[in-house]
Amino acid sequence: MQLRTDLALELAETIDQAGGGISVSEYDKGGAKISRIKLTSDDSAQSIGKPKGTYITITVPPFSDDAELGDELLMAVKDEFTSLLPKEGLILVVGIGNTSVTPDALGPKAAAGILATRHISGELARSAGLENLRPVAVLSPGVLGQTGIETGDIIAGIVKNIEPAAVIAIDALASRKLSRLGCTIQIADSGINPGAGVGNKRREISLSTLGVPVISVGVPTVVDATTLVFDLLGEDGARQNKELIEPRGAGMMVTPREIDILIERAARLVSRAVNCALQPGIPPEDLLVLAG
Amino acid sequence: MQLRTDLALELAETIDQAGGGISVSEYDKGGAKISRIKLTSDDSAQSIGKPKGTYITITVPPFSDDAELGDELLMAVKDEFTSLLPKEGLILVVGIGNTSVTPDALGPKAAAGILATRHISGELARSAGLENLRPVAVLSPGVLGQTGIETGDIIAGIVKNIEPAAVIAIDALASRKLSRLGCTIQIADSGINPGAGVGNKRREISLSTLGVPVISVGVPTVVDATTLVFDLLGEDGARQNKELIEPRGAGMMVTPREIDILIERAARLVSRAVNCALQPGIPPEDLLVLAG
Amino acid sequence: MQLRTDLALELAETIDQAGGGISVSEYDKGGAKISRIKLTSDDSAQSIGKPKGTYITITVPPFSDDAELGDELLMAVKDEFTSLLPKEGLILVVGIGNTSVTPDALGPKAAAGILATRHISGELARSAGLENLRPVAVLSPGVLGQTGIETGDIIAGIVKNIEPAAVIAIDALASRKLSRLGCTIQIADSGINPGAGVGNKRREISLSTLGVPVISVGVPTVVDATTLVFDLLGEDGARQNKELIEPRGAGMMVTPREIDILIERAARLVSRAVNCALQPGIPPEDLLVLAG
Amino acid sequence: MQLRTDLALELAETIDQAGGGISVSEYDKGGAKISRIKLTSDDSAQSIGKPKGTYITITVPPFSDDAELGDELLMAVKDEFTSLLPKEGLILVVGIGNTSVTPDALGPKAAAGILATRHISGELARSAGLENLRPVAVLSPGVLGQTGIETGDIIAGIVKNIEPAAVIAIDALASRKLSRLGCTIQIADSGINPGAGVGNKRREISLSTLGVPVISVGVPTVVDATTLVFDLLGEDGARQNKELIEPRGAGMMVTPREIDILIERAARLVSRAVNCALQPGIPPEDLLVLAG
Repeated sequence: MQLRTDLALELAETIDQAGGGISVSEYDKGGAKISRIKLTSDDSAQSIGKPKGTYITITVPPFSDDAELGDELLMAVKDEFTSLLPKEGLILVVGIGNTSVTPDALGPKAAAGILATRHISGELARSAGLENLRPVAVLSPGVLGQTGIETGDIIAGIVKNIEPAAVIAIDALASRKLSRLGCTIQIADSGINPGAGVGNKRREISLSTLGVPVISVGVPTVVDATTLVFDLLGEDGARQNKELIEPRGAGMMVTPREIDILIERAARLVSRAVNCALQPGIPPEDLLVLAG
Repeated sequence: MQLRTDLALELAETIDQAGGGISVSEYDKGGAKISRIKLTSDDSAQSIGKPKGTYITITVPPFSDDAELGDELLMAVKDEFTSLLPKEGLILVVGIGNTSVTPDALGPKAAAGILATRHISGELARSAGLENLRPVAVLSPGVLGQTGIETGDIIAGIVKNIEPAAVIAIDALASRKLSRLGCTIQIADSGINPGAGVGNKRREISLSTLGVPVISVGVPTVVDATTLVFDLLGEDGARQNKELIEPRGAGMMVTPREIDILIERAARLVSRAVNCALQPGIPPEDLLVLAG
Repeated sequence: MQLRTDLALELAETIDQAGGGISVSEYDKGGAKISRIKLTSDDSAQSIGKPKGTYITITVPPFSDDAELGDELLMAVKDEFTSLLPKEGLILVVGIGNTSVTPDALGPKAAAGILATRHISGELARSAGLENLRPVAVLSPGVLGQTGIETGDIIAGIVKNIEPAAVIAIDALASRKLSRLGCTIQIADSGINPGAGVGNKRREISLSTLGVPVISVGVPTVVDATTLVFDLLGEDGARQNKELIEPRGAGMMVTPREIDILIERAARLVSRAVNCALQPGIPPEDLLVLAG
Repeated sequence: MQLRTDLALELAETIDQAGGGISVSEYDKGGAKISRIKLTSDDSAQSIGKPKGTYITITVPPFSDDAELGDELLMAVKDEFTSLLPKEGLILVVGIGNTSVTPDALGPKAAAGILATRHISGELARSAGLENLRPVAVLSPGVLGQTGIETGDIIAGIVKNIEPAAVIAIDALASRKLSRLGCTIQIADSGINPGAGVGNKRREISLSTLGVPVISVGVPTVVDATTLVFDLLGEDGARQNKELIEPRGAGMMVTPREIDILIERAARLVSRAVNCALQPGIPPEDLLVLAG
């Protein structure tokens, strides 16, 4: 029985002392606290339980508050994206998750706000005043229970066909702490991977499985019920209460009552930031109208 | 700090010994276990923390299993409805809850499957082969955060205008135990009321607030996170961990990962059973087509 | 057999010469052409086939173009709203139409973007930095086929209960010309009314039926198929081809293939303009975040 | 300027006399009229403007009527599917179209009702009482404007990865006659192809582009506005009125006002018939529960 978290920041907190191959930098920008963890050695990757790569954690004002998610925050998040993206070439944006389960709908919701441009030819684009568009393709393939196909296999088939320079994968994440829900964004360049925890539905979607770089973006929207109880009761206590917290073996998740507002605002922030990072030549207000 | 549950059955279990004014009967029907609790005295109502009335709890095979939810179960649930409904007159069916939060979407989802007939006049109905239709009106008013109006106030305004013989209110419920989620239906004739628990969003919608009988139907879809921790750690433990389990004062709920399937199937069972109870003159298969 | 249009501007074009009691003014603002028709006499109202009142027609760049729907246009539309709204008091915004039929979904879509504030009490509002909020309630009641209740009857019940200073009714409109679809907004202070045309589903929702002023806002999204054929073939030709254009007596509508983009952008413009008119104390960017 | 129709039956009616290589058979079954057109020669295919293959047209009672769409009709449609499907092997079902435009939502709506089974392994299937399941995968990829990728290219990538025995493509169709909307189903084994008409958004999705057989299923939900006017005014009349019926070059479609009910019922009939054809070992009632 292990903890389930998709956040490198929380995994880094669990290890007593970092060995070599881990660098951490922290700074404030646009009203957000930003932490960059770089895992550069196999040892550091293994001790944390994540592949080598850069993990950016952005802590923002809670999405469910009526606080301002203003333009400075948007630009700060955009800048972090830009730092991990290839400078040019086609980008495939994938919205991962299930639109029918609110806390799992972040990926498809955010993907619906991404401006698809790959099909807009030079002539058409010019006539619409949209020159210098970067080609972008967008897909929300649904989840295994709906399609019968692993999400990674669907993406792999399309990557082979359209040959993007990189994939951006947007997904809802599991955190270890309830206090992180709705105020954290993680951007990483190591793709999507199973993480250290058990019960993880996610299969690897990464450079090694797709052949192109995978930038992942996620917002924690749930805490695994077993992980919550583990944190409260310890490993023994969680094991003793396993049948109470996992009846019929079904996974239970803990999520805020106002999850609809959280998802709505997080999806909009992510899609706006991705659009701005991908189309620096178009003003943010115009992107808001175009991506509608 | 108190437990939060909407189930009379669970409240009845918490009292050491029933005084007078409580009668309980149990029986099996159509593959379901059915329990009927009648609270007939003020004392019994107060000891349990629910108004006087009849509370029917139907325990069915889990909705998320691929088990058969067959015609016998449908007829058993229909019979329980029929036992609480007035024999004739207009019925207003209200779907309570938020379509944007999956575990709270049961009411609107089920209401969308109810056949509205109040507007089908005698002539039109006859020409469509739909004679002897009972008049039914259907509404899903949305939640306070979306409308700015208490659901009960919306219903009260419409009840005054169309004067139904009774209201059927469909709503998602909170249970105390995770094992009850997705395999329990509660039908009661005392309306919707705040219950014994804290943090309850529900305001009274009942004979005394509307002036007409209110039959409520609900399926537990969440456990309050505080209640779960209370059950695991006791009152002191829950209080000590309050900031961990309720960061920023936000309510947290525990719900199955497969909540979309649970809601889909529960909503269909409820709407089919209500349609069959309201329109005994139309064959169940035809109702399935008509109610779309 | 008559023409079906909800636009006062098109009705005014059909009469040979305006008698007394009609005043028309036209001006440009924020990139839009604005026409104001005032019907002040019973004669003028009857000749045009609309109740007395002010009808503002705003012609904007086509919503489906990738043209800029910028802040100036937003402010121009907001100003027209403000000119017809009571200065203070509770406003009830109603989204009329059917979310399941794209060209009829404008009302509910726009209503979903209106900031409901009636339930935010003074204390709570202050703590969230939201002082001087005007109280607003919002409802999308669904259509007769879903509810069995006339939309006007649902609104009347709620108006009696919450006593607003005025109702804003948002609805998709029928135009006579395909070229008007997606580039016209009509705002009027005479409520919603059956118009001159046949086959009109709309029943009167107005000061005389509700007891409070009704400001209507609409965007033409369809042309009636019979009206299109009437315009092409004349009255005789339309009558001769009635069975071809209305098989089984069912109404047919003509609508653009890109109706989803039209509805999305029109709904956003309407809801943003209404929010800005109702909450002049909150900056437009903050309203965009709050109304989510 | 040409007629736009996706129905082989309507194309066959336009040719004066069939040459060799066309066979037509007609019969009644389960309350439906069924017509089978076989194009076996290149000449016949060219004269009709469709590839060689079998085109089954099923004329059913109008979906928008409250008439019975009973079990006999379901079985009749299922039998026609079965006649064109390979006997065994993985099937990929694709829902083509745009969920945000009601008349174009048939494909995704029907696909959402198809039981995906490819991921249910032997052991799991047995424990759930689901032996002898045929493996099925399901995808609704969205439309070009949302994804930036041709639907055919998305499907081709996935077909290469999962190697199905055949693809079933479900799509809304254009008819030439308003009277055909909502009472016709076309099933064909030649895939999806551009047809004879102009302005057709559809690119070929067929054995020759995918390398596996493509069974297409469609229901006409719109008539092209230009085609309607062509039929009313003739070619010259339609050309003269081009700017009236196609303002700004945008395509206009004619569709019933009750298109939501039509789509809902057509999607259910198609998904139930496909499920029954694919899983003959599971009773139809159980498929209804399982496919959610």
